[in-house]
Formats: sequence, C-alpha cells, structure tokens
Amino acid sequence: MQRVKLLIEYLGTNYVGWQIQDNGKSIQEEIELALFEIFKKKIKLFVAGRTDAGVHAFGQVAHFDLDTDKFEEKKIYYALNYFLKKNNNKITIIDSEFVDDSFHSRFSVKQKVYLYKILNRKTPSYIFENRAWFIPGKLNLIEMKQASRHLIGRHDFNAFRSIDCQAKNSVKTIDEITFTENGDFLEIRILGRSFMHNQVRIIVGTLLNVGRELINESLIIKILNSKERKNAGPTAPALGLYLEKIKY
Amino acid sequence: MQRVKLLIEYLGTNYVGWQIQDNGKSIQEEIELALFEIFKKKIKLFVAGRTDAGVHAFGQVAHFDLDTDKFEEKKIYYALNYFLKKNNNKITIIDSEFVDDSFHSRFSVKQKVYLYKILNRKTPSYIFENRAWFIPGKLNLIEMKQASRHLIGRHDFNAFRSIDCQAKNSVKTIDEITFTENGDFLEIRILGRSFMHNQVRIIVGTLLNVGRELINESLIIKILNSKERKNAGPTAPALGLYLEKIKY
Repeated sequence: MQRVKLLIEYLGTNYVGWQIQDNGKSIQEEIELALFEIFKKKIKLFVAGRTDAGVHAFGQVAHFDLDTDKFEEKKIYYALNYFLKKNNNKITIIDSEFVDDSFHSRFSVKQKVYLYKILNRKTPSYIFENRAWFIPGKLNLIEMKQASRHLIGRHDFNAFRSIDCQAKNSVKTIDEITFTENGDFLEIRILGRSFMHNQVRIIVGTLLNVGRELINESLIIKILNSKERKNAGPTAPALGLYLEKIKY
Repeated sequence: MQRVKLLIEYLGTNYVGWQIQDNGKSIQEEIELALFEIFKKKIKLFVAGRTDAGVHAFGQVAHFDLDTDKFEEKKIYYALNYFLKKNNNKITIIDSEFVDDSFHSRFSVKQKVYLYKILNRKTPSYIFENRAWFIPGKLNLIEMKQASRHLIGRHDFNAFRSIDCQAKNSVKTIDEITFTENGDFLEIRILGRSFMHNQVRIIVGTLLNVGRELINESLIIKILNSKERKNAGPTAPALGLYLEKIKY
C-alpha cells in the first residue's frame, strides 16, 4: 500500500463545497471521479479541511491509499489534472507526493492558514469577482487589530460558530491573526490548528463590524464571554475566504 | 460645456477590446450605452489607450463632454456603474472627475504603465484563469532583466509591432521595464508614453524566449536593429496584459 498526499487549489465559486452533497458538484466528488478514471476503482479521499460552498483553496491537502505502486509519484497530479480539466473543473492538483502511512491529511495537521480577502474601495471589481468581499466604506484598521488580539489563544468560541455546527467542544486555539494592506485589498489571515463551522467567517464579520465602527473593539471580549452566536457579527460571505496553507 | 474624465477598470475576457466592432461587445460601446441611458443622448468617448480583445485594465482613462452641468461630478461614476451592471458588464467606473477643457485622455498622456502577469509554476490556476499567462518551465530572470535593458530608450521598434500596425512612425521611447516576483507570479511592467499595436505583448513574448533560454539576451539588440517582426518572439496572449495606470 502506498499513501499519496495531494496539494490542491480550487476556485470554489461553482461548487457546493469540499464534501459530496446531493445538490451540486463538490470538490471531493470531482477529484474522486478523476481518481476513478485513472485507477479504474473507487478511491476515497481524506481531506484536511472541508471547505464550504463558494470557499476557495490555494493549499488544500488530501490523501488516499493506493494498493499498487506502478504509478510514479509525480505522474499522479499530472493525470488528475488531465481528467479534472476534461470534466470542466476549476480544480488544480498542484502536487502529488508519496508519504508514510503515519501521515493523515486531517489528524497530522499542525496549523491551518485561512486568508480572507477584502476589497476596500468605493467601487466593486470584476477582475476580482467572487474572489474578494467588497466593502465600500472606510475601515478603522487600528481598532480591528486591537479587537483581533482578544481572540488570540485558547477560548470557548461558541459565539463564533454556526448554530448548525456539530462539534461537541467549542474550545479552540487561535495562534495568530494578521492584517496586510495590499493596494485596495485588506488581507486577514487567521492561523490555528482547527476551526469550527463558519468560525473564520464569523470572526471576519465581527472584526468588520469593529472596522466600520459599529461596535467598539473591547466588545469582542463580551461577545466571546457571552458564548452566544447572536452577539457576534454576521458571517462574512464565502467568496472572500481561501484555505491558504496547511502546515504539518 | 463640462469635460468629464473617467477612470475605468475591466475584465477584458469577453470583450472584443475597447473599440466598437461588429463581432462582439466592446468596452467603448457598453460605456457609451450607459452614458446614453443616463443623459438620453449619444455621447462619444475618447480613450487613452485602445486595448485589444481579452486585455484588461486597472486604470484605463477616457473623457467625454457634457453640455449640461446639472449632474454632480461623483454621481456620474455611480450612475454609470448602475447601468453597466444592469447590462451584465465586467466594467467598473472607479471614478469620475470634472476636468479642464485642455485635458485630453489621449493627447495629455505623460506615461502609460502596462502590466503583464505570468504564472510561473508547474500547474495552471483557475483562481487566476484568464488573468495571467501560465508558463510551466523555469525562467532565467537575470537574463530577462539583462535583455530588457537593450529596449530602454528611443528606438525603432518595427520588429516589435504587429504587421497590421498602421502607425507611420515606429520610433518609440520605453522609459522603464521592471520585474517583480510575487509568489509564483512574475509581473513585468513596461512604461512609456505611447505604444504600437501588440508592442507590449511582442516585447513580453521575446523576453520570455530569453527567460526560457531559447535565445541569448544579447540577441535582443540584433532583433531591434533588424526592424523585422519575424525576428522577434511570439505575441504573448492578451489574457496576461493589464493597462495598469496612466499618468498625466
């Protein structure tokens, strides 16, 4: 048996998300279909982070097991891209690598980097359509940075997860939140080992409320302590979110 | 009479270019249509740089004359964006500004900045689909930089323009060529007051031949002196080209 690690990029716009669902094309289904076309058998993918509908990835990671060793390591990504393109997908396998059996795309994760892109100017952009959240008003970046500091570390993030989230334990650790201004773009990066459903998007939505000066930065502490979803800000739209990198 | 200057961004992918043509939607036609919807009369746009089919702009500039002053300066871009969106365009008017009659979008240009984006990695990207030229092989950036120096200044660029180019005089001045590495992207910027048809794209195509080590950097001098289009490299595809900025 040979375990294979895939590094995956996708434009999530027209997908129902990573996971297979009845209502549309999923990333998982499309890559598994391409695997079937190559290996002529059903192969199950295990993923690092299941992204939602419309969320993109620069560096998603998945693995699968092969019971043959007749394929070269680097021919796998090449062949997958051929079939993914043939089926009109917006998915690229950036790399394929043979890894030890002890590697697991999900359980071996040390840190995930989520990137949220905001276009902050007076007018929207079609060059970045579906690729950034358009926010026309002025943002108070100093307050946003101050607010983000209250979220660093180990906390109960119950106020910052979808009410549909199934996770039993809502205590999570955020390692770092960074802000990068890049022309008219504001890039927010949130780093941690694992996140709950919509956690990154609710954090971004809440930080944006601070940036718009709708709430004071110190209110973040109260929202966190309340543990109630209704006290946090709106869920930022999927189109601005990228699973940028996974560290093992 | 009031002269109005527009700052324009567009994704050029599905347009035949700036100029009105029989075979598809043009940027000019669509903005003039929006002007008609606002002012209820035919208004002609004058543009800084006519871009080709598939070429994008971050900072195109055009002007037109109004025989009314009942419109506020900043309401014009806002109203134009409303009608452009209504007609499913990928065009954004970033700003509208009242300018003096002496201003002319084309004749007042001091410098244009063209940006050419190259994605240089093993695999293509759907996030940047139609937004960068995908080059999988290794590029020798040092040689490309060296080659670009031979093009700086006033030269007869006859070898570096489309054989269909109508300009009588092929002597042009290139002020600067810069190279910026940005992750897997190589951004080439070419600065000058005016360019001939396909000049930027043929320069990029030729520099890429140097980068791929198909030709030696010093050959650029011979190509330039030959004044023959057939000696230069291929025309780089439109999808990587952006009219980034115009300085007045």
